[in-house]
Amino acid sequence: MIDTILLAHGSGGTMSHQLITDIFREAFANPTLDQMLDAAVVEVPTGRIAMTTDSFVVDPIFFPGGDIGKLAICGTVNDLAVSGAEPKFLSAAFIIEEGFPLADLKKIVGSMRDTAVRAGIMIVTGDTKVVEKGSADKVFINTTGVGILPAGRYLSPTCVKPGDQVIISGNLGDHGLTILAQREGLSFSTPVESDCAPLNAMIGEALKYGDAVRCMRDPTRGGLATTLNEIARQGKVGITIQEDLIPVSPEVAGACDMLGMDPLYMANEGKVIIFAAAEAAADIVAALRQTAEGKNAAVIGEVAAEPPGMVLLETTLGATRVLGMLEGEHLPRIC
Amino acid sequence: MIDTILLAHGSGGTMSHQLITDIFREAFANPTLDQMLDAAVVEVPTGRIAMTTDSFVVDPIFFPGGDIGKLAICGTVNDLAVSGAEPKFLSAAFIIEEGFPLADLKKIVGSMRDTAVRAGIMIVTGDTKVVEKGSADKVFINTTGVGILPAGRYLSPTCVKPGDQVIISGNLGDHGLTILAQREGLSFSTPVESDCAPLNAMIGEALKYGDAVRCMRDPTRGGLATTLNEIARQGKVGITIQEDLIPVSPEVAGACDMLGMDPLYMANEGKVIIFAAAEAAADIVAALRQTAEGKNAAVIGEVAAEPPGMVLLETTLGATRVLGMLEGEHLPRIC
Repeated sequence: MIDTILLAHGSGGTMSHQLITDIFREAFANPTLDQMLDAAVVEVPTGRIAMTTDSFVVDPIFFPGGDIGKLAICGTVNDLAVSGAEPKFLSAAFIIEEGFPLADLKKIVGSMRDTAVRAGIMIVTGDTKVVEKGSADKVFINTTGVGILPAGRYLSPTCVKPGDQVIISGNLGDHGLTILAQREGLSFSTPVESDCAPLNAMIGEALKYGDAVRCMRDPTRGGLATTLNEIARQGKVGITIQEDLIPVSPEVAGACDMLGMDPLYMANEGKVIIFAAAEAAADIVAALRQTAEGKNAAVIGEVAAEPPGMVLLETTLGATRVLGMLEGEHLPRIC
Repeated sequence: MIDTILLAHGSGGTMSHQLITDIFREAFANPTLDQMLDAAVVEVPTGRIAMTTDSFVVDPIFFPGGDIGKLAICGTVNDLAVSGAEPKFLSAAFIIEEGFPLADLKKIVGSMRDTAVRAGIMIVTGDTKVVEKGSADKVFINTTGVGILPAGRYLSPTCVKPGDQVIISGNLGDHGLTILAQREGLSFSTPVESDCAPLNAMIGEALKYGDAVRCMRDPTRGGLATTLNEIARQGKVGITIQEDLIPVSPEVAGACDMLGMDPLYMANEGKVIIFAAAEAAADIVAALRQTAEGKNAAVIGEVAAEPPGMVLLETTLGATRVLGMLEGEHLPRIC
């Protein structure tokens, strides 16, 4: 009885077919995937699609609140959703290290299936490669997503205007701290867990406010601070956020304090930043708070014409300082 | 002066942005990519798209006739093309080992650009992850492609009928032997090189014959024999091929003979198998032969109702034997 991945599982021959049938098709079965063509053929309304890709190399592959499989679905679903698209079709490509336990692969694939169902996205095509022991670390997953963009919808940093409000959908730093704690063997009296979640349903609530939603981004690698800097630069606006408005759980705040980390630079996998017209911001926050993923949503700042391309932080003590992009490496293989 | 990949290049922060600007945007620049959104937004004129994904882990990453970058474009372009789609949009995701030379990355990205231009496909979105030294072998690339399917076109093994002819577009085994020779340090008096090429232009010539083209596949991992078995099983038909009709270069035939390898199981990266109606087969072969990639195209066999799901080989000596799928592992990391 074979219970680990062998090089022959990546050969394209009999064992590849067995792996695909027993593990991937078993979990992901749907009429498109079942056709087993070189490319999946799917229907889309004539018009615009959104397309995004992400590879996942997170270490450890299992962590409180999720695993690499759940993360691989959420990451791509969320990138489609923040672009205003309805996530529809997903590819899943695995690079697996020889010797990887089949039981772990099944668990990961099961998470992918469950998360895809929750997000309403269909896995339509895939690929598996196997590399020799020592040539990759356990398993890497790429997901690439296609979503449908409703006519007329366009979200971009270039749509952000002075006076717009900055909304965050919940507490910062949960994913980053969870991975760090797992990797370093740290434990806290109140356990932390990753916020990893598909956000398309929650984002759908915000999108009901139409053009009042200018731009959305999920603050993953590099955290809130880096993502805001990207938007400030691309939108050529200034962004000022208020430290005392930024939601951070007491556990993450305490642990970051102890470890010398900053939650504003820590990765999130279940949060969205929304730039919204001032008159709609309070309603959007109220709508987000009705959802499980958005219960701690808050307005945390505002857009101004000045200083263009920069992010300022007004601290709890009343000082104002420049909040730069992440420099160097915070925590490798966070996603 | 930094000349290798650092972990910070994968942080999502300042160095990630620099890498994207200096290497990826520099090479791939186009209006969609330049928007730098979380998801690329592209137009789809018809109601059906084809979607396919492949990760590339080939070792060595540079080889005669190509490199991992060229391969990553060709592999996905060809999977779209054999499904009958016009390749349009591509994502490119890199997993890079810490310490990888930036000069090599530039060379690979340059190959990707050149091949994408040749194939007429646009790289619209991407991702970069960096893992610690020893956690991946140099560089892995995933490409996922989206193509447009003309109305009414449907190619599938289920369209294959008894009496259809089996066409191969050229010599078998060039890619497989090239990788094997590089890896094992073998050299031949007449050098071999990979057949790696985008085939969409050549395939376009065959598609002019409309419904006479039933199904196409590119025989990559597992080679001709494995791919024919997949089609025989999915189409529930019997396929008989004639050994003396199968084009193999004298170099590959000689080397395979010496090494105990079988060209029918060796990977190809620039060949297509076409199942075509008998009355159109000779014309399709003639059309393929007008192209650079198809100059050695030939009819190599025929489809019958019996034995369903099986492939038979009529040998040069007149015997008939069952040609099975690839068993075990022929050559790991061939693509």
